[in-house]
Amino acid sequence: MIVRPEDAPRHGGPGGGGTLYFSMAGGLTQFGAHVDTLAPGAASSHRHWHEAEDEFLYVLDGTPTVIEDDGPHDLRPGDAACWPAGVENGHHVVNRSAAPCTCLVVGTRLPSDRVHYSDIDRLYTRVSGVVGLTRRDGSPLPQEAAP
Amino acid sequence: MIVRPEDAPRHGGPGGGGTLYFSMAGGLTQFGAHVDTLAPGAASSHRHWHEAEDEFLYVLDGTPTVIEDDGPHDLRPGDAACWPAGVENGHHVVNRSAAPCTCLVVGTRLPSDRVHYSDIDRLYTRVSGVVGLTRRDGSPLPQEAAP
Repeated sequence: MIVRPEDAPRHGGPGGGGTLYFSMAGGLTQFGAHVDTLAPGAASSHRHWHEAEDEFLYVLDGTPTVIEDDGPHDLRPGDAACWPAGVENGHHVVNRSAAPCTCLVVGTRLPSDRVHYSDIDRLYTRVSGVVGLTRRDGSPLPQEAAP
Repeated sequence: MIVRPEDAPRHGGPGGGGTLYFSMAGGLTQFGAHVDTLAPGAASSHRHWHEAEDEFLYVLDGTPTVIEDDGPHDLRPGDAACWPAGVENGHHVVNRSAAPCTCLVVGTRLPSDRVHYSDIDRLYTRVSGVVGLTRRDGSPLPQEAAP
């Protein structure tokens, strides 16, 4: 099934960035595949790693910076990053350039996972599809901290 | 873990085409993610569909043609294709243009799958990691037909 960019659901981001959900439009369920555009100064997420799900990034356009436990890495189109499940390497993507940057991001879709955040006291859990967001010790977040 | 194109294992194809195995270089096991370049006139594979594994394609460069059960589709950079597991839609990619074309291809990695070929009498099976290639009825292929 062909999916053109204009057929993919889009979620807007700050400064004209946003995400195109190709795999959702095409009915895939085993992994997600979407195209993320980050405006200058934007970040993909808080730095994190997954216990159960593999994650992959491929640079399509621009010069994103990937921050991992060992520091920042400047990427260009054609570079990739791989984050195998269970490897404790907190990562995110930031755009330190003056132009937008765009990456294709793929992640396994499993019923259960735990996501650890490197720089904030937060833990995301999914158990048989039921999601939760708590402090690292499992205690509830203050109301205003929930997404 | 950052994977530059020069760090990814490469398998050459006809006419200067070839495949860069990014996910293998980065230690991913739940899905494969590689970049395929097809020379003019080349095809990705025989037309096929998977019983168990999702498959995704994203056009990076050039103008590949995706052939599905309903006929040919001309794609351009930024277009995608999704083939959900179990959907009987035989597909492959051919390069009918005069220039190389390049796609990122992602597929789930499962211990067991069956791959059906639309235009030739062939069946690929993988059962708990053990692979086989037979006729559709399960009978052995002549020696010279095996890959």
